Amino acid sequence: MGLFSKDIKTMNDLFVHQLQDIYYAEKQLLKALPKMADKATDKQLKQGFMSHLEETRTQVQRLEQVFQMHGAEVKAVKCPAIDGIIAEAEEIFGEVEDKQVLDAALINAAQAAEHYEITRYGTLISWATLLGHKDVAAILDKTLKEEYAADDKLTKLAESRLNKEAA
Amino acid sequence: MGLFSKDIKTMNDLFVHQLQDIYYAEKQLLKALPKMADKATDKQLKQGFMSHLEETRTQVQRLEQVFQMHGAEVKAVKCPAIDGIIAEAEEIFGEVEDKQVLDAALINAAQAAEHYEITRYGTLISWATLLGHKDVAAILDKTLKEEYAADDKLTKLAESRLNKEAA
Repeated sequence: MGLFSKDIKTMNDLFVHQLQDIYYAEKQLLKALPKMADKATDKQLKQGFMSHLEETRTQVQRLEQVFQMHGAEVKAVKCPAIDGIIAEAEEIFGEVEDKQVLDAALINAAQAAEHYEITRYGTLISWATLLGHKDVAAILDKTLKEEYAADDKLTKLAESRLNKEAA
Repeated sequence: MGLFSKDIKTMNDLFVHQLQDIYYAEKQLLKALPKMADKATDKQLKQGFMSHLEETRTQVQRLEQVFQMHGAEVKAVKCPAIDGIIAEAEEIFGEVEDKQVLDAALINAAQAAEHYEITRYGTLISWATLLGHKDVAAILDKTLKEEYAADDKLTKLAESRLNKEAA
């Protein structure tokens, strides 16, 4: 949550903070996804990362829209959780030589990021609804559905092809 | 994944590493959960953290059993992802004064941890099955079900009471 979290007094403050946190996370993923696509060997996986990169760009724009609708400044605060997920992924990527095993590790890393986003967006939607911002909740829900779909795609890819090849 | 990830050549190596990673994560949660219970105001939430602490103890034992069944040394490797999730949670806890808002933040943090575990156990089960270790997969599946149940409980608690009070 970073340096700016000293003034969390209300649910609204907490909501805005979580928004700043996920905004940071999405921006970090914008940098991480092309690297992951680059490392992937399986074509479907590579394309999956690139198409999720496009989705992520839209998700960033949605967050900017939500900041504005909420009357809050568009701002990112450092999110140690996503930094940890990405650091862990990069560490392991450097150590795996076999291409199929690397693809399995890439999927695993991507799913950790997806699940992080799923939990944060789930919470944001619940808080937006509670705070009476149904319009904001509806926008965030579009992203949540995309994250679930991305996670499902990765599971199917893992189970159907990659992991079997790697084993 | 830590310092020990230099020898990931096969899916089996990747599986063992992920096992070491989640073993570390569970052990960190053993330390974090009593602190979270201590900070919680809502009785149900406090009890929820304490009963999940008990579950986590069993989950650690299951992991030790899986290491043994898999013929691998019981070992933890540093997991920056769970460290990031916990660091982020502790940072925000220090900044929230209102008790109900703090409870909402606690739930949010706990759900991030649950989702991290859900994705890692999901992957481990898929890899264990693929590697032909159905017995190992069955044990890990018990934990996965508990993590899903814990996450659901937190969602229900958040939606039914805490968030409304905090707003």
